[in-house]
Parts: sequence; C-alpha cells; structure tokens
Amino acid sequence: MYSVTVSDHVMIAHSFRGTVFGPAQRLHGATYTVEATFRRERLDQDGIVCDIGRALDVLKEVLAPLAFANLDELPEFAGRNTTTEFLAGVLHERLKARVRDGALGAGTAGALASLQVVLRESPVAWAGFDGPL
Amino acid sequence: MYSVTVSDHVMIAHSFRGTVFGPAQRLHGATYTVEATFRRERLDQDGIVCDIGRALDVLKEVLAPLAFANLDELPEFAGRNTTTEFLAGVLHERLKARVRDGALGAGTAGALASLQVVLRESPVAWAGFDGPL
Amino acid sequence: MYSVTVSDHVMIAHSFRGTVFGPAQRLHGATYTVEATFRRERLDQDGIVCDIGRALDVLKEVLAPLAFANLDELPEFAGRNTTTEFLAGVLHERLKARVRDGALGAGTAGALASLQVVLRESPVAWAGFDGPL
Amino acid sequence: MYSVTVSDHVMIAHSFRGTVFGPAQRLHGATYTVEATFRRERLDQDGIVCDIGRALDVLKEVLAPLAFANLDELPEFAGRNTTTEFLAGVLHERLKARVRDGALGAGTAGALASLQVVLRESPVAWAGFDGPL
Amino acid sequence: MYSVTVSDHVMIAHSFRGTVFGPAQRLHGATYTVEATFRRERLDQDGIVCDIGRALDVLKEVLAPLAFANLDELPEFAGRNTTTEFLAGVLHERLKARVRDGALGAGTAGALASLQVVLRESPVAWAGFDGPL
Amino acid sequence: MYSVTVSDHVMIAHSFRGTVFGPAQRLHGATYTVEATFRRERLDQDGIVCDIGRALDVLKEVLAPLAFANLDELPEFAGRNTTTEFLAGVLHERLKARVRDGALGAGTAGALASLQVVLRESPVAWAGFDGPL
Repeated sequence: MYSVTVSDHVMIAHSFRGTVFGPAQRLHGATYTVEATFRRERLDQDGIVCDIGRALDVLKEVLAPLAFANLDELPEFAGRNTTTEFLAGVLHERLKARVRDGALGAGTAGALASLQVVLRESPVAWAGFDGPL
Repeated sequence: MYSVTVSDHVMIAHSFRGTVFGPAQRLHGATYTVEATFRRERLDQDGIVCDIGRALDVLKEVLAPLAFANLDELPEFAGRNTTTEFLAGVLHERLKARVRDGALGAGTAGALASLQVVLRESPVAWAGFDGPL
Repeated sequence: MYSVTVSDHVMIAHSFRGTVFGPAQRLHGATYTVEATFRRERLDQDGIVCDIGRALDVLKEVLAPLAFANLDELPEFAGRNTTTEFLAGVLHERLKARVRDGALGAGTAGALASLQVVLRESPVAWAGFDGPL
Repeated sequence: MYSVTVSDHVMIAHSFRGTVFGPAQRLHGATYTVEATFRRERLDQDGIVCDIGRALDVLKEVLAPLAFANLDELPEFAGRNTTTEFLAGVLHERLKARVRDGALGAGTAGALASLQVVLRESPVAWAGFDGPL
Repeated sequence: MYSVTVSDHVMIAHSFRGTVFGPAQRLHGATYTVEATFRRERLDQDGIVCDIGRALDVLKEVLAPLAFANLDELPEFAGRNTTTEFLAGVLHERLKARVRDGALGAGTAGALASLQVVLRESPVAWAGFDGPL
Repeated sequence: MYSVTVSDHVMIAHSFRGTVFGPAQRLHGATYTVEATFRRERLDQDGIVCDIGRALDVLKEVLAPLAFANLDELPEFAGRNTTTEFLAGVLHERLKARVRDGALGAGTAGALASLQVVLRESPVAWAGFDGPL
C-alpha cells in the first residue's frame, strides 16, 4: 500500500465541558499541526498517489474555518467537546467529502483506499482518526 | 478508528549478551522517548478516547521502575536482553494491565481496542510493539 | 561559555489589537513550547550550570499562571498584545526574578551570566528574548 | 506485532514529466530522510526483531545508488517519474530482495512479516510504501 | 534582545566544483529548510519585532528564484559553489535588501538590529549566516 | 559570520555524585545527540566554512571513546561528574585540538573563529559549550 502525507497547522481557542478535563475546562487554545495521509493500492499513470500540491490546498481549505477561531462559537460544534480526537474525526469527514467532490481529481477519488488524520497538540500529546475513503 | 498518543521519556543503563550486539555488549545506556497510542472505535460521551492526563500519569507510572535504573540489575529482566523492542513489549504488557485495572477509568478499559508502544532510542533507530488491549 | 536548556509547554487563548495582526485579531490560541537557556562562565563544584530538576520546576512555576488561561483576561497583560516575543520577554523577567530569589540555589543566582527564552508557536514561527541575569 | 525502524538520508536531483507536477517539472532536487520499519510477530532468541546495525547497513546499501545522483540519468528509472511514493516502493522492493538474500541473517529473513518504507521530502510532505516481506 | 523567527523550505538541484566535495561534485539536490531570525532591541507599539505574516511573505519571496531550480543554471551563481553556507549568506543579503526597501514596514527597517539565516540540508548538517541589518 | 553544523549521537552509561542529582546518582545512561557548530568570518575559495564530510568524521572520532561506554570507568573522567554541560566542554576541547592538528585541513584551522558544542539528552533538556577556536 502506497501513502502520501501532507501537513499544515492551525491556531484555535476552545474550552471543554466535563470534570474529566480539569483545568482545560477553562477557555484556552492550541496550535494543531495536522497531518493527512492518503493511501492507495497502486500509483496512477503519473506515478503518484495524488497531486501533493492539491492535497496541501485541500488540507488548507478544510482547516480554514478553524484558523484563528474560537471553536466554542462555531455553530457546527455546539454542544460538543472539540477534543483533539474529535477534531481528527471531523477533519477526516471533511477531507473525505472534498475528495469525493473531486478536489484531488476525478480519477483519484475512486482510487484512494483510506485516510489517516493526525493532530499534534503538544510535544507530548497527539490524536488521530483513520478510516476508509 | 480514533487514537490518542501520549509521550514521556526515561534514561537507563544496560548491556546486551550475544555477539550480534557488537560494542553494545558493553555497559552503556539510552534515553528512550516513549510513545503510547491508545485506539478506540468510538469516542465516549465526553468526546475522548481516554483522559489524556490520566494516560500521561499511567505512562509515567509504568516508566518509573526504569527511570535512572541499570536494567541489568532488575530481577524481572534477569537473563533477558532489554532491547528496545523487548522493552516496547514489556511496556505494552504493563500498560495493558494498568488499563484493565481501571487506571484510565472503568468504562474506558473495555472500550479501548488496541495499544501501540514506540521507544525512540536515537535519531536513527526506534522500535515498537502493537497489540490488542 | 556553558549553557543548560530546559523545555516545557503551555496552551493558551488570546487575541490581538491592531490591523497588523489580520485574522489573529480574533480570539484564538496557541501551544507554546518554551525553552529556557541558562548560561554560565564556569561550572560549579558539582560540574553543573544549575540543577536541571530545579530549572524544570522553576520553568513550570512561571508557566503556571499562563496554563489553560485566556491571556486577554489576565490583569497584568491589560492593554498589551501578548505576542510570542512579548511573552518571551515576560517569562525572561519572571525567571530572572525567581533565580535572584534563589530558586536555583543561592550560589547559582550570582554565577549565571544570561538567560535566553524561546517560545515556539508553530512549525514555522517562534520568538525569543535574550538578556543578562 | 514487534517492529524496529532504522533511518538514513540521501540527496538527489530529478525532474518530473506531466502537467500535474507544475514547477516540479523543472530539474530540482530533494533531501530524503528514509525510514525502514521491519515487523515481526515474535522476537528471536537474542530478543531482537533484527540486527539494528545490519539493518542500518542494508538501508545505506540500497540508498547508495541514489546518493548524490541525478535520478533522471539512472537507466532503471527511464520513463518513470521518480516521485517520493514511487521511490518508497522501489526501496521496499530492494530492501525485500536484500532481506531474502540473507542480508539481515538467514534466520531473520523468514521470520520478518512486513516492511514499511517512508521518505520525508520536506517538513510538510512525505510518502511511503507498506507491504509483506 | 528580542527575536522572531520564520521558516519555509525550498527544493533545489546543484553540483559543486572541487575535489573537497567528493561525490557532491555530481549533480544532486537538496531540500533546504530555511529559518530567518530577525532581532530587535525593543518591541514596537504593537508589541512585535515585525509582522510575522509579512516576514513569512518576504522569506517566500527571496526563496522563489531558488524554488524547483537547478542552481547551476542561475546566472547570478555562475562560477560559485552554491554550498549551504554560501546560500545562507546570499539569502541574508537578499532579505536585508528587502527589509531596507520597506518590505517589513518603513518603521521596522530601521529598528531591526540583525538577522540570522539558517539552512538545514539534512538531519545531520546545516549552515548559517549571521550579521547586522 | 558564517557557520556550519554537523550532528551525530552516542549512547553512554554513567552516574553522578552529589545530592543535587537525586535519582541520577544511580547508574543510568543517555543517548546524546551532539551538534558541533564551526564559525568563520569568510568562506574559503571553495565557498565553504569547512569540509562537511571531514567535520562529520572528526565529530565521530571524538565521540568514539564515549560510544557504548560506562563513563564512570574512563580514567580521564575519574572524580568528575560527567554532566551534559561538562561533556560539552570536554568535546569542545577535543574538537579544538583536532582542528589545530589539521583534521579539517591546514588552512581551515587558522580561519575558524569559534565552536559551539550542544548535547541533547532528552526532549526537555540539553546543554552546550561555546568558545573560541
């Protein structure tokens, strides 16, 4: 199985609800370094998994609504804890939708097997979501 | 599949027996950066794989007996080469036992699917163990 | 000149005032990885620049008021933009005060020559302050 | 499953054919940091997945033909785009052949389950190939 | 002294003349991760060393002529070995010129004290140039 | 001022004497990633600070006596605490001697201005020595 990974980052504010979060219940923030790994059984005729420039663009595109945002105020996250792992799942879903819409090329959409999204929140903690495309 | 990774480090001394180890048969040491990745199919009601603070505590707890230790003198490793991959397996087993004992919460124990442990020993070499929880 | 560096991290929320900041005028946040480098002309009788454990403790201590905080609400920063470089200066000042108070040992305080503080805010941007102790 | 990873790097020149590559159609180059992860169900009698020194040697050996080379001039790549993912596949194949030839020891060859090769081309892009041994 | 650092990267091909370069006399290439550190005695009224967004833009601007280029073919480098340290000096000079032209703002140009440029060419080698602005 | 840095690593065992060291008084060990930065006012006729291949060789050479060693047993360190900062000073001295002996070339010896040695012992602690050549 081949794979290509692209990375970008985003800076956000948010707070969590639930005693399990301790001091992170307060409004705080994070720099997330985000890695998206696209997997594919065979390379296309150009010898690639997908266009790496387009993959970087699509990643930036799905990160844009989070960039310099207070996630507590985004309607789509109302009533949810925007934990690192939750956001990994959300970004997986949004990247998947963009891929299906042809953002990486019409031929690529059907050829990709799966996608892993990893968000690094600090030198000692990161989270991810891995699933089919 | 969702995942959460926590990381810590430990500094140890040890030596190996067997000509395959060359100069590493001498007493030497290592700084191991240790990463533990917990995987889970669905997030819990708080939106997490597990309590990241507790995960860091449990990792520190299983690393404590190795911290500033000469592994050659630890009875549980008598007659064994404490290679990086061997230690990854040992830490997997110990983390698994702690998780089953409820160290990450009673509900979390049953919900976690698997655990990967990686030990980085130098910029050019690391090892791991991956298995079910 | 000898030096010893210790590192920790902190997650905060804040916003900036001034058109120069563009989208960073909105409430957002950051994970800051903070590095404090203590410099000294000669090692002490134990062969150290300073007690590395104590240095890590003092760093954690000065970071505590920022941990999981919204810097916009901290009275001491009222009317100031808590930029990465500004925070580097603040942490330098606070570490300096703690060192002078003997937090690294009475003998160490007078022997240290200078201190550099670096805050990494993303993979592509960091800032620092370097000055005498 | 146990794993051991070794890493090395190589500096190459090349160009790509196809409009999908944009400016990378021009002759340019890359530093590839290459990681090879060998996986094995059980450790051998020495407590290892494979001899880490030999693994580093074999990795250096398969990288040697690429070191300081213009890949456009290597006959074996004629008519192919030497993309990062393509090279990951090539290195997987060559490492596999060397393992089967006994380069990691006769006993190790049959015991290894799979191999992942990752090439990091920049801080924001990397690619890999993962397959059985 | 305050400082702000921004980072970007560029992928190039080149070759060297001189037996000291060994195999690097052949046409090869590199991914350079480039870090530019701007230093300033006091922060401006916004609390910054310089506009970090503009600094990233200016860095990208001076890297543009090198991006996906064969440095052997650039007229300005004719007869020169484009070593990592040489390129650090060139980028220092070009960034200095852009700063003086007001690319970081008219007020910033006169206030900056010095600039360090570092190019990382591999995990085990990097080079830099540090000088006044 | 130009600079070139080369990096290597070494794995050692040692123990410290003095209550300031706490648990590090026990026999333990470390992986040290070692960085040597050579500085020079002007580049030589080849466009370099020094031959990077030779610099890597000289670094490996001075690290060789420490490789896979128990520093407590090395006669030259008898009665000394082999702290990270102390070792940085020792390696500075040994590299300086090798440079003066012409290990980087006869012409280079006199042209180099200074040398910084940094040893990274863990993700959160490193130390260095910086001085003239």
